[in-house]
Amino acid sequence: MIITAMRSDGLQIKDISARAGVFNQEEVNCVGDIWEEYLSSGSDVCGYTFIVAKEGDQVLGFACYGPRDLAEGVFDLYWIAVDPNTRRSGIGRGLLTASEEAVRKIGGRMLIAETSGTPLYESTRAFYLGMGYIAEATIKDFYTKGDDLVIFVKRL
Amino acid sequence: MIITAMRSDGLQIKDISARAGVFNQEEVNCVGDIWEEYLSSGSDVCGYTFIVAKEGDQVLGFACYGPRDLAEGVFDLYWIAVDPNTRRSGIGRGLLTASEEAVRKIGGRMLIAETSGTPLYESTRAFYLGMGYIAEATIKDFYTKGDDLVIFVKRL
Repeated sequence: MIITAMRSDGLQIKDISARAGVFNQEEVNCVGDIWEEYLSSGSDVCGYTFIVAKEGDQVLGFACYGPRDLAEGVFDLYWIAVDPNTRRSGIGRGLLTASEEAVRKIGGRMLIAETSGTPLYESTRAFYLGMGYIAEATIKDFYTKGDDLVIFVKRL
Repeated sequence: MIITAMRSDGLQIKDISARAGVFNQEEVNCVGDIWEEYLSSGSDVCGYTFIVAKEGDQVLGFACYGPRDLAEGVFDLYWIAVDPNTRRSGIGRGLLTASEEAVRKIGGRMLIAETSGTPLYESTRAFYLGMGYIAEATIKDFYTKGDDLVIFVKRL
């Protein structure tokens, strides 16, 4: 079941981001920070929406998206992560599809996912390509030297 | 003289952004919003720094830059604008050079300027190219249909 995240999902969301294996400590902290903003201000004010894939009370994965300032109908997929213990079970695909549907429903016409060009993110890039995203732009040495930014885009 | 913006520069900064002729109302409002954030929180908290080119008390132009989250040493040039009455006098080049120097001084290694691909922004794009920026990435139909995002990058 994929639903909008509730306050009680917070600990599991932070735990999954820490165990996902692709986020560094700064990124894990960033997930925590925007989660707190989402809780305290709500989606409309802070611009972030969290959704979770759940089985009973267990969070199996989460995604977070929000509108890009000054670009009509453009949304960013800020985060998507699945509990490592439940990988290859379609949870990631379900979360991304649900994000796209939610964005489309509120007038979105484009979803953007930024990721790294390093080998660690090869499966992430393959995931976006498999979901119909195009690697539309690259900025060399963006994250650090040797670690490019790859911008994946899907027109909805 | 190019210096860090002070509270008393606010009205002139907003006025220039409104008269610059390249920002729509939403963008003009956005300049105002981040100016208020800069005043109330300060650069360290809000992440925005405003600099101004001044002649006496008159603001001739301004620029605003700040660090990109999660990317080591990467800074965004959010805004740069010159009073239309003082154009072609090197104010824009001075503001951009001062932004680059300030960013380099605090450990920045890359400055990114995002702009539009439409004819209205042709002189803006020529300006960045002339200042040593590379049009490194494009996202088609980003701002609206027919209005691409062009990402200019300069390694510092």
